[in-house]
Amino acid sequence: MRLIDEKAIEKIALGAALLGTGGGGDPYIGKLMAIEAIRQYGPIQMLDPSEVPDDAFVVPTAMMGAPTVLIEKIANGNEFEVIIKHLEKYTGQKVFATLPIEAGGVNSMLPFAVAAKLGIPIVDCDGMGRAFPELQMVTFHLDGITTSPMVVTDEKGNSMIMETVSNNWSETLARTATITMGGSVMISIYSMFGHQLKKSAIYNTLTLAENIGAAITDKQDTDVLPIDRMINFVDGYKLFTGKIVDILRETRQGFNFGKAKIVGINADKGESCEVDFQNENLVVMKGDEVLATTPDLITIVDLETGVPITTEALKYGRRVVVVGLRCDAKWRTKKGIETVGPRYFKYDIDYVPIEERVKGAK
Amino acid sequence: MRLIDEKAIEKIALGAALLGTGGGGDPYIGKLMAIEAIRQYGPIQMLDPSEVPDDAFVVPTAMMGAPTVLIEKIANGNEFEVIIKHLEKYTGQKVFATLPIEAGGVNSMLPFAVAAKLGIPIVDCDGMGRAFPELQMVTFHLDGITTSPMVVTDEKGNSMIMETVSNNWSETLARTATITMGGSVMISIYSMFGHQLKKSAIYNTLTLAENIGAAITDKQDTDVLPIDRMINFVDGYKLFTGKIVDILRETRQGFNFGKAKIVGINADKGESCEVDFQNENLVVMKGDEVLATTPDLITIVDLETGVPITTEALKYGRRVVVVGLRCDAKWRTKKGIETVGPRYFKYDIDYVPIEERVKGAK
Repeated sequence: MRLIDEKAIEKIALGAALLGTGGGGDPYIGKLMAIEAIRQYGPIQMLDPSEVPDDAFVVPTAMMGAPTVLIEKIANGNEFEVIIKHLEKYTGQKVFATLPIEAGGVNSMLPFAVAAKLGIPIVDCDGMGRAFPELQMVTFHLDGITTSPMVVTDEKGNSMIMETVSNNWSETLARTATITMGGSVMISIYSMFGHQLKKSAIYNTLTLAENIGAAITDKQDTDVLPIDRMINFVDGYKLFTGKIVDILRETRQGFNFGKAKIVGINADKGESCEVDFQNENLVVMKGDEVLATTPDLITIVDLETGVPITTEALKYGRRVVVVGLRCDAKWRTKKGIETVGPRYFKYDIDYVPIEERVKGAK
Repeated sequence: MRLIDEKAIEKIALGAALLGTGGGGDPYIGKLMAIEAIRQYGPIQMLDPSEVPDDAFVVPTAMMGAPTVLIEKIANGNEFEVIIKHLEKYTGQKVFATLPIEAGGVNSMLPFAVAAKLGIPIVDCDGMGRAFPELQMVTFHLDGITTSPMVVTDEKGNSMIMETVSNNWSETLARTATITMGGSVMISIYSMFGHQLKKSAIYNTLTLAENIGAAITDKQDTDVLPIDRMINFVDGYKLFTGKIVDILRETRQGFNFGKAKIVGINADKGESCEVDFQNENLVVMKGDEVLATTPDLITIVDLETGVPITTEALKYGRRVVVVGLRCDAKWRTKKGIETVGPRYFKYDIDYVPIEERVKGAK
């Protein structure tokens, strides 16, 4: 167990933006909520998954919907008290701790605010090791853990407890409820016991995010660019360096679809590159060559500052590096690739691990 | 307490079609379900509201959505067992009895099937004394009883428990859930205690429906037309007699809107009449003269057989009588008229009780 303070939150938020692979919204608003909660209730206990008792009831908390809507439609601050109350009443279980469902974006931060406010610990793990757009895209799903009972609540005080026949039905029903409730809601989902968490979670992703944040902001060695310190720390790949020349964006069925076109500079001068996204970055191509695909992580980072850029913040003329990172081994299984591989997102591309693609690169 | 058998069900279904004021779907499919359940589980206990203990937990059961969809998408037969299980678990209360939320259409019959199958009594009352299209249009709502916790389930096995901040929010959220779940769902709503039921329900509407059915089908006095026996029994009004010459229908936002045009025959020869509906018949006009409006009951009945006709079954050339009936006094209060009066349905007409309109008629 260790205590998380404001400084740690700042670093985790920065690192979570890298793990967010362009999606999940800027962790900024989540960070503000977490910092505000720490100021009011004190530092947050963060547990290693190994410290969670096997029979403890643990509950991922998150927002669902468009993060851009959340900014306009601020939470009333009591949603998670309502959610936990409903869940405890319905299951007869006492909630021991919370955790993030994903390690990127707003949802990497919200559970800190929940933990501080409710006086429960947060567990240093998540269900993706990154961010993904749909509810069934978590390692818990791969291991047969159900979304149900899922609790959905809005800032007005409406709430629903859902028991569904599949995690995909939870996605469908909760998605339309989210739209009806105003575009963003707070949820708890995949509530489970400690022994399930220990088997299925991706461990220590919050500490990883913190260390990524520290690598980016480290002031000790100013001869090295932040991007290089970070790449070195995460053992990642600089897939392409260039200048953004075009952004296409389209909103369909509640998702942000789009494409960023980048022309090479420095070592990539003369080349060009495209990054495709559906909320998260999914595929990066250099001409006809696939450089990386989901579920490996693809994040666009500012060349000078090393700060990760969400898809909303991509702008013409910005000089960037497309960074690639190996995903967790749980995503490289057959069911993992079926659930979040390029073909699920309608790309006619087989998944090949990023390290093999890089090795074979021209 | 009395026992309800197949014969009683036949009569109740027929009478419920009159109280259904054209909407709520043909009770036919609900009747089949009730009869099937009686054949399998035996006759159903029907209690007078006065026989329900004050602290007994009673639960209206119903379908929500388009009755026409229900016919295509037959219930799996276990929806209400699932609903009652969820509700008992969530509230910690044992369900003592069920009742219909409305006295017309499919929903007048479904609770009989539920009662037979679950081995619980049905209470001889409802929350409308007729049928209405929206969830908050019940006498329970007028007395501040909440829809929550509302349970929604589909034939696939998905279910939701909803706790909302208002009965109108229940309507909104359940309506979109219904559409996502395939257009029709089974629900429990306005669960309450015996003392609330006794204060807020409209009493003995199932017995009323049965007696209306008996009046229509009575074979004793063949000199009198069924329509006249029925009008006489319910102390109602023959508002207009004629032949249907035009039907306009439009489906918007999950409701059936429309208008039937009727040209007079017999005493009404030379006149013409229009009946407007939104699922249920709402307003009947003779030329510029308003003959009756919601919440008073307006039902179109076959001239020869006295059988009530739902809006779906209105057809060119059919000879009909437009029948008017006084609504329950609970609907004639300020809140009652606000909730279901003509202005709620966007008509620029004040509510005037049908007996005053008839008295003042030209």
